[in-house]
Amino acid sequence: MLQLYHAEPGANSLKSMLCLKEKGLDFVSHYLNLAEFEQHNPEFVRINPNGQVPALVHNGQVITESTLINEYIEDVFAEPPLRPADPVARWQMRFWTKFVDEYFCPALSVLGWQQIIKPMVEHLSEEEFEAKIARIPLKEQRDKWRTAATQSFPQEQLDDCTYKVDVSLQKIENALAKDDWVAGPDFTLADISCFAMISPMPMFYSALMNENRTPHCMDWHARMMERPAVIETLAMAHKPLPTSAR
Amino acid sequence: MLQLYHAEPGANSLKSMLCLKEKGLDFVSHYLNLAEFEQHNPEFVRINPNGQVPALVHNGQVITESTLINEYIEDVFAEPPLRPADPVARWQMRFWTKFVDEYFCPALSVLGWQQIIKPMVEHLSEEEFEAKIARIPLKEQRDKWRTAATQSFPQEQLDDCTYKVDVSLQKIENALAKDDWVAGPDFTLADISCFAMISPMPMFYSALMNENRTPHCMDWHARMMERPAVIETLAMAHKPLPTSAR
Repeated sequence: MLQLYHAEPGANSLKSMLCLKEKGLDFVSHYLNLAEFEQHNPEFVRINPNGQVPALVHNGQVITESTLINEYIEDVFAEPPLRPADPVARWQMRFWTKFVDEYFCPALSVLGWQQIIKPMVEHLSEEEFEAKIARIPLKEQRDKWRTAATQSFPQEQLDDCTYKVDVSLQKIENALAKDDWVAGPDFTLADISCFAMISPMPMFYSALMNENRTPHCMDWHARMMERPAVIETLAMAHKPLPTSAR
Repeated sequence: MLQLYHAEPGANSLKSMLCLKEKGLDFVSHYLNLAEFEQHNPEFVRINPNGQVPALVHNGQVITESTLINEYIEDVFAEPPLRPADPVARWQMRFWTKFVDEYFCPALSVLGWQQIIKPMVEHLSEEEFEAKIARIPLKEQRDKWRTAATQSFPQEQLDDCTYKVDVSLQKIENALAKDDWVAGPDFTLADISCFAMISPMPMFYSALMNENRTPHCMDWHARMMERPAVIETLAMAHKPLPTSAR
């Protein structure tokens, strides 16, 4: 049996939800509301000691880290293949999933946190806030929460992150100018990783991603939005999603 | 034909050199002297536009990113296997190689840069230094070089990196207390990734890594140092290595 602990269909949660759907795999969905800090609940921290979603449970074994969850799903459920058979094409695919994890996602994450954390915590008393922070397993995550909630990130860091998001989009744009899909002629886990980041960007980052600046990204985004697996996955949203991300 | 562009047998270069040696694969070695900024030479930037080592060239195809180079080598040259066949064990292995890339290596890298960059550039005039910086393809790398060379990293950042290096060692220590090798009962790419970082640490980080604090790491390090592939790889050093790292 497959169980997935996940948040809304966005970012890293979307990455693994979409991989399961593209494979046509049934899974038990366990929704965690990040706005209620449910990923730091003791019951979930027993499943993933880092207190981070998504987490896949397969026959009782916990598998974490969205990119590695997707490689695991591919290792266990080979059909339909989302990883190229040719080793060079496979390397190319992994180059993108690694790029998303180490460059695109961390930059986008800071910009997202800057937007969402303050409204999530401003109704809490200092004691309530400290109690929430104390449950976060990773020091790095505690530091990031505290910065986002109490003092904002420095403008220099926000500018640097915006630069990196733009570099990421331009790299993907250049790739899509050459091929139909991010890592080449076939739809792969690279498309899933990139779409997990880009999904709401035509609405929220329209200054960076639009018909003039990134026409191939816009076309690819439209093709992604027509895939049955994408439609099904985005329909799993618990909160209303903005129109362009549905 | 296999060709590897690499620096001294340490860190990311060591990771791919060691993988090739463990596989018993012959390769043409192209040594780049980082102290002379040779990784930013136009000839090498044509091979890897990011100007970073290592880079593997296999039948004319350039493969970059040490962790992905090793997955590629494993995809093409299956024997002897350095990646477990069991999907859960394989996920466990990738958990470690990802942890090294995203947590352990970036922290260790800042501490290393703090030590080595200033002596590398202090004999340069400002003009010579700016000319070196101008050749670096990645903005992030230019920023990192400039910080390390001219103003040092902030003490808070250095302390944070030391904390992360210690967390990394303790995690590896806990893994090695349970199993002979980092990712389980078998020697895998996880051992190669971790050793690429840890190789000189008993000498240079003896306050963190020693018989009292990390006895299992010390034992594993000694077993690693006896492997023929490790002996051969470390013997490829162009500059004398400290005794404990030979």
